[in-house]
Amino acid sequence: MTSFDLTPEGARRALQGDAAATALSDDAVRERYATVIWNHVTEPGDGVAGRLVQQVGAVRALRAVMAPDAATGHDLTAKEFADGLKRWVPRVAPGAVAVSLRIAATRGITILTRADDAWPAQLNDLREHAPLCLWVRGDPQRLRALTPSVALVGARAATSYGEHVARELSAGLVGAGIPVVSGGAYGIDGAAHHAALASGGLTVALMAGGAERAYPVGHTRLLDDIAEQGVVASEAPCGGVPTKWRFLQRNRLIAALSSATVVVEAGWRSGSLNTAAHAVTLNRPLGAVPGPITSAGSSGTHKLMREFGAQCITSADDIRELLQLSGVRPAAASDDDRPVTDDATRVRDALSMRSWRDAGDVARRAGMAHSDVEVILGLLSLGGEVERQAGAWRRIRQVMRE
Amino acid sequence: MTSFDLTPEGARRALQGDAAATALSDDAVRERYATVIWNHVTEPGDGVAGRLVQQVGAVRALRAVMAPDAATGHDLTAKEFADGLKRWVPRVAPGAVAVSLRIAATRGITILTRADDAWPAQLNDLREHAPLCLWVRGDPQRLRALTPSVALVGARAATSYGEHVARELSAGLVGAGIPVVSGGAYGIDGAAHHAALASGGLTVALMAGGAERAYPVGHTRLLDDIAEQGVVASEAPCGGVPTKWRFLQRNRLIAALSSATVVVEAGWRSGSLNTAAHAVTLNRPLGAVPGPITSAGSSGTHKLMREFGAQCITSADDIRELLQLSGVRPAAASDDDRPVTDDATRVRDALSMRSWRDAGDVARRAGMAHSDVEVILGLLSLGGEVERQAGAWRRIRQVMRE
Repeated sequence: MTSFDLTPEGARRALQGDAAATALSDDAVRERYATVIWNHVTEPGDGVAGRLVQQVGAVRALRAVMAPDAATGHDLTAKEFADGLKRWVPRVAPGAVAVSLRIAATRGITILTRADDAWPAQLNDLREHAPLCLWVRGDPQRLRALTPSVALVGARAATSYGEHVARELSAGLVGAGIPVVSGGAYGIDGAAHHAALASGGLTVALMAGGAERAYPVGHTRLLDDIAEQGVVASEAPCGGVPTKWRFLQRNRLIAALSSATVVVEAGWRSGSLNTAAHAVTLNRPLGAVPGPITSAGSSGTHKLMREFGAQCITSADDIRELLQLSGVRPAAASDDDRPVTDDATRVRDALSMRSWRDAGDVARRAGMAHSDVEVILGLLSLGGEVERQAGAWRRIRQVMRE
Repeated sequence: MTSFDLTPEGARRALQGDAAATALSDDAVRERYATVIWNHVTEPGDGVAGRLVQQVGAVRALRAVMAPDAATGHDLTAKEFADGLKRWVPRVAPGAVAVSLRIAATRGITILTRADDAWPAQLNDLREHAPLCLWVRGDPQRLRALTPSVALVGARAATSYGEHVARELSAGLVGAGIPVVSGGAYGIDGAAHHAALASGGLTVALMAGGAERAYPVGHTRLLDDIAEQGVVASEAPCGGVPTKWRFLQRNRLIAALSSATVVVEAGWRSGSLNTAAHAVTLNRPLGAVPGPITSAGSSGTHKLMREFGAQCITSADDIRELLQLSGVRPAAASDDDRPVTDDATRVRDALSMRSWRDAGDVARRAGMAHSDVEVILGLLSLGGEVERQAGAWRRIRQVMRE
């Protein structure tokens, strides 16, 4: 089942439409091709694949998948590896990789990996859950201007109040030279992007499906304009469809790419609360805009203030103050600055997708304090990653199919 | 200048309209009369008079004023005592005391002192700034039902949103058996009282002028209804006019009488922020209701959330949660439970009304950490007690005239 040609020549042939590949050494071009393959083989946020690739490199990791018995140099347990194979092997499909590379070449979409200069180093804060590739419409060098930047997110079903506020905040931020990151959706996202563009500012839209795909269709023109003046990017390879899982994982990229996240307007179950939860687990500052307590549209932002310590945001100045809490990391900062442990990851790992486990059990497995585990379970629940029943918790199964 | 007859007979004669006086011993009736006199001689919140009366009793304290050289048993400095005399002596006027006692008797207004059973013990948390008397319209026993209770306060120039929310919260609280305290003013206060009455609940209005005085006049009927079903009370003797200073001091009573304070709607400079500041200095939980950031009417509540740690309140349930933070003190708790130091008082004492002092100077004088002093100066400034100029601070002169 050696279905990919991982020789330097094979890699160069496969990446012939990828301008960045031509200048690379034989080793580097093979690693780049293998990274793109891993990006296809895995769903966003597959932390086991992330660890494998980070520990042995993409080429050796792919060899390990093709010849599992020979795999060494990684710390995956036998079970993690075996479960991983079940996810990855069915997706080892050279045709699909070739298709997305062709779309990228045709549509002028650039591929970034961690090895590229323009790679936004702040994404590495996601550790093994960091994306393997970014597929970028627009000048990828613009991504270097995102420290600091602010994610303005919120409900698709926004009120005119919410959209008005999103426009005001976005214009205020880009007017102060601070780029605005969002998700390209209707409602708050769209208002934030629109106002940033209208003010001549830098704005970045992160997509759940392929970067070439106009989603929602009604934002085709908006996304074209963002690509022209800013960046439209996705972790999903070209051709990829936006699934529920990919939206949730896309939200982690919005939170990780930005120095701070502000939820402008959100109902009790808005997906933007998931972005907020990611910001909190990443230790990025979180803000929320209040609204009338009589408006269901603001119940989510009030929840963030009440239960998740979100700062109350009333103006772009308030957001600039919030940024000062972020200790914005210069692009060149070393990996040593990052926190050593990621408690949310430990809790995720201690949860099962099959069995219900109570918080005490999860705490024991994670080796963490019960109270800390409860806080993080709350965050993960807010983020749609876990569900609760009769006092017990379970991880929500990832949707793996496109 | 022994202008008061402090013999038991004199006291009984003066208090002949005061039903509570008839059952008292000779000593107690003299102390009661002297306390009422001190209530006239001082403006609300006169901490020096408060210390003097608490340390030597009202009768001896009054003798000390009449014969200063013989005064012993108190810890006032010579300067505090001399400055006090300048404030108190010009107001030693038996006629004024007789007038307010006559109004009280005529209007069925009860006088409470700390010696009375119905005295709300939580007011003693104000220490030397506690009121000497409360003048009460309505059944004073109802005041015993105020632990727990909630102050709902806010702007007079309220929006329909603010008034709607005040009604909802007030009805929700009294529906759960929690009395609502407020200031009887137009706007938020009035909406809170009205809804409490309409729901058959207990509500208390604290006035800045005499309890017999309908202020504002447009609330004559409302205040009558409150007195009928709840309590209208004031620290100012009957006949007293509401001055700016008395409004500020009345706010401290609202905060001290209630277990928690919630600001429903307030502009940037609303007097209700002063009530909030008193709640914070008293270590009582503080809540604030958010509103549209586009509404100037909510800018004050957002400030309380951003800068003063007010909890975001979206429902009566949220307020009940806030009350759990208050560690509501049972009425019979001893004085020993109270905090030993009151940092706000130390900062007040370290400030001058004449000289501008910078925060470092104030910190030295108060013997407190610079950062703590800055926080408290912010609170006092919010409360309208201090003003700032070119980085220096000054206490705002108290208005002593009626």
